[in-house]
Amino acid sequence: MSDAYRQLVQQISEIGQLESVEAILDWDQETYMPPRGVHARAEQLSLLARLIHDRRSDAVVGDLLGQMNGAGGDPIRETNIRETRRIYDRSVKVPSNLIGRIAKISTHAKSAWGEARRDNKFGHFAPHLKELVELKREVADHIGYEQERYDALLDEFEPGARTADVAVVFSRLRDALRQFVAELRDAPKQPDTSILKRHYPQEKQAEFAHMLVEAIGFSFDKGRIDVSTHPFCSGTSPCDVRLTTRYDEKFFSMAIFGTLHEAGHGLYEQGLGNEHMFTPMGSATSLGIHESQSRLWENIVGRSRAFWEYFYKNAQSMFGPSLADVSLDSFVGAINAVHPSLIRVEADEVTYNLHIILRFELERALLDGRLDVDDIPEAWNAKMEELLGIRPGTDTLGCLQDIHWSMGTFGYFPTYALGNLYASQFYAKAETAIPDLADRIRRGDFATLLDWLRENIHHHGRRYRADKLVEIVTGESLSVEPFLSYLRNKFSPIYGLT
Amino acid sequence: MSDAYRQLVQQISEIGQLESVEAILDWDQETYMPPRGVHARAEQLSLLARLIHDRRSDAVVGDLLGQMNGAGGDPIRETNIRETRRIYDRSVKVPSNLIGRIAKISTHAKSAWGEARRDNKFGHFAPHLKELVELKREVADHIGYEQERYDALLDEFEPGARTADVAVVFSRLRDALRQFVAELRDAPKQPDTSILKRHYPQEKQAEFAHMLVEAIGFSFDKGRIDVSTHPFCSGTSPCDVRLTTRYDEKFFSMAIFGTLHEAGHGLYEQGLGNEHMFTPMGSATSLGIHESQSRLWENIVGRSRAFWEYFYKNAQSMFGPSLADVSLDSFVGAINAVHPSLIRVEADEVTYNLHIILRFELERALLDGRLDVDDIPEAWNAKMEELLGIRPGTDTLGCLQDIHWSMGTFGYFPTYALGNLYASQFYAKAETAIPDLADRIRRGDFATLLDWLRENIHHHGRRYRADKLVEIVTGESLSVEPFLSYLRNKFSPIYGLT
Repeated sequence: MSDAYRQLVQQISEIGQLESVEAILDWDQETYMPPRGVHARAEQLSLLARLIHDRRSDAVVGDLLGQMNGAGGDPIRETNIRETRRIYDRSVKVPSNLIGRIAKISTHAKSAWGEARRDNKFGHFAPHLKELVELKREVADHIGYEQERYDALLDEFEPGARTADVAVVFSRLRDALRQFVAELRDAPKQPDTSILKRHYPQEKQAEFAHMLVEAIGFSFDKGRIDVSTHPFCSGTSPCDVRLTTRYDEKFFSMAIFGTLHEAGHGLYEQGLGNEHMFTPMGSATSLGIHESQSRLWENIVGRSRAFWEYFYKNAQSMFGPSLADVSLDSFVGAINAVHPSLIRVEADEVTYNLHIILRFELERALLDGRLDVDDIPEAWNAKMEELLGIRPGTDTLGCLQDIHWSMGTFGYFPTYALGNLYASQFYAKAETAIPDLADRIRRGDFATLLDWLRENIHHHGRRYRADKLVEIVTGESLSVEPFLSYLRNKFSPIYGLT
Repeated sequence: MSDAYRQLVQQISEIGQLESVEAILDWDQETYMPPRGVHARAEQLSLLARLIHDRRSDAVVGDLLGQMNGAGGDPIRETNIRETRRIYDRSVKVPSNLIGRIAKISTHAKSAWGEARRDNKFGHFAPHLKELVELKREVADHIGYEQERYDALLDEFEPGARTADVAVVFSRLRDALRQFVAELRDAPKQPDTSILKRHYPQEKQAEFAHMLVEAIGFSFDKGRIDVSTHPFCSGTSPCDVRLTTRYDEKFFSMAIFGTLHEAGHGLYEQGLGNEHMFTPMGSATSLGIHESQSRLWENIVGRSRAFWEYFYKNAQSMFGPSLADVSLDSFVGAINAVHPSLIRVEADEVTYNLHIILRFELERALLDGRLDVDDIPEAWNAKMEELLGIRPGTDTLGCLQDIHWSMGTFGYFPTYALGNLYASQFYAKAETAIPDLADRIRRGDFATLLDWLRENIHHHGRRYRADKLVEIVTGESLSVEPFLSYLRNKFSPIYGLT
């Protein structure tokens, strides 16, 4: 067993290495690759994708897994065997040529999506999306599911999660948020967001964001920040974690909170066990848990009054005239203002989840056949009206805004909202474990919180699935209550609610 | 045959794609990788090296090659089949575990070399170098050779070249250069190089170098320039060619001519046939030919009076006070000054070749057993005295200066000097083909020369080996005469020789 296990680790480490190479090429494509390099990059990435798929479903891996008779009580072995089996099972079930067809169609779908956005014509994109939905249904059917098709796709990003459970949680969340948004709209105090639209020079924003990110614990010996059109965090090993951001000189929040968000992802990646590099034990457990870390640092910590009690003087001296006449309270109000808006990636932390719920409901209906692709624009607009009380004037501002579907990615969106819920659950627990946490933040001590996250979340890698991890850390299962009470506690003083 | 050929192209394209991925990772390591990322990078690169070696020597490739009965007169097929067979034959002859041992030992040798340099103790490095020499002898014996071991290693970098032929050419070159260096030393006029050591701000150097490189035809849609400790050019496809450079604010020449040098490599890479990407037909034919392109643009064009007749006013306005009182003639003299010096990478274009000849003679003697590793320092110093009339005070300034041997790279150095010879041969031919070439350069027209190089050299990819290519382009075989007469024509006015 010991020898077979060693061989298995060798096999899965090589898959992990290929995935990390893929991540570097993706990062390079978004940051430094010359514009005309895209054709060669597509070839390189397609070869890597095939190599990775072939290895994941390699009979050698299947044989080695067959030789594993339990893990002898060793949690590391148990994790690596379980997670390798999960990936192997998924991979062998889906025929290679189906993977290849999806990759090919999504290349065309992505460019059709771009044209559809440009021309505001959903019709350009619809035929490609129909094919992708059809193929992803096939994928789901090959993988299999107990209750509904969407389960099989959701499982790729949030292993073990069930659509029906998520739907129950989201339903409760939707009702509470709609009510809360209405309360805030009618609240006596309304933040003035115009102060965020003054002039904030890019190089000052970069310097300030770098300082914040370093202060919360991101190591620049093991990572870096670059510029890209769409911000992301690419973790290729715990010692090589790359964040990207983007700047708008006329908007304070984009780069600053965007970088804090990606740094939250980055802290998780840097906190994974170096000794388990390239194996499941050294990998993030789910996208939902990943998002919990980014949201925790971006919103719960980074948009808190305590955080700015420590950093605001610094911001004022960095940005001089643009913040000189702005009180700390006005500033904290502005960065937390809640307004229903059309674009998900620009949404505040309250309405953001309603954008996700909209996508979840449409995806689920698409997959089980209750919604036709051609009816997406109307369904989208109707849901926007229902959930946020606004209606996009164009499909570009509506159902064409996200790239995900053009890549054949269904089941990903819910993890964003799950991340918000997990973040609040974790943070509530951290507040009981570290009773003076707010004071520590007020003093610029972020290490205590980070250490707690490392010990309780990061170090576990994939040892526990998301639902289990939340239970172990907080003693509760997935729940909306901590998030709702966090919102109420935070927004009541800002909006003058009683 | 057609079908087998298509399969062969598919196989070799995938090898080419993996090599290009390797090149991106190497580039990244030298430019943007976080310092602590080195361990994961070593794992990724080692996996890629194994994948590439396995595919090069894959029995499938051998079978497909066996099915090729000639190329039906198609030069593209002929090239791809011949070069694939060459790589396949080399790869199957060398056992995988020998490759693995060399890779492992050279990892240690590289760090021992670093320590030996730091402490100026050749003894730290010697045991590792002994092992590497031993293993490279084994490699050469596996590959086989007609005349001497060194042939088998030289052939990796300069396919088809014979050590004995190179030795004859180098012997003639050595004698002529030693005499020429003495003539220049005693010449009536001596350039004043102190003007190059004034203050040249880095951002101005970067802007100026970017402008020069773009002017000679390097496309920034298909390439970029970054900073690294050791400058290099990484061509991952004709549409993705990356140069690096380094800056010294107290030395005009380093970044400017370094960038022109790498851009010369880059123009070759950008000139390779896009339609043959990732196959031998779309690859550079040898390192010697590669170096001929870098040297042609750096020295023959970039250090010519005609070049600076066009750009010098620009340089003066860019660098203001540092060049205001310097005449064009003084400037051209300074950038062409010849002085025997200890460090190869800092040598001028005349003495540079003597540095190469020294290394070639020592490598050849090491490989055939006439020289012991322990005797390298003394042999090096004696040869420096013989060839350049100077003696390094330390081994760090002597036999420890280059990284090549610590990587097990023997047979590479001669290609640098071969490049100088090829460059002069090509340029002499270009001057007859384009009779007003100097005038065109004086007017800033570099496109005519570049088009000629593209048509006569770049577009051929690996269709012709270096010796054959030189014959086809110039009607002559490898020769030192064009280089020597180029030197005499150029340096006589600068040094006031008659």
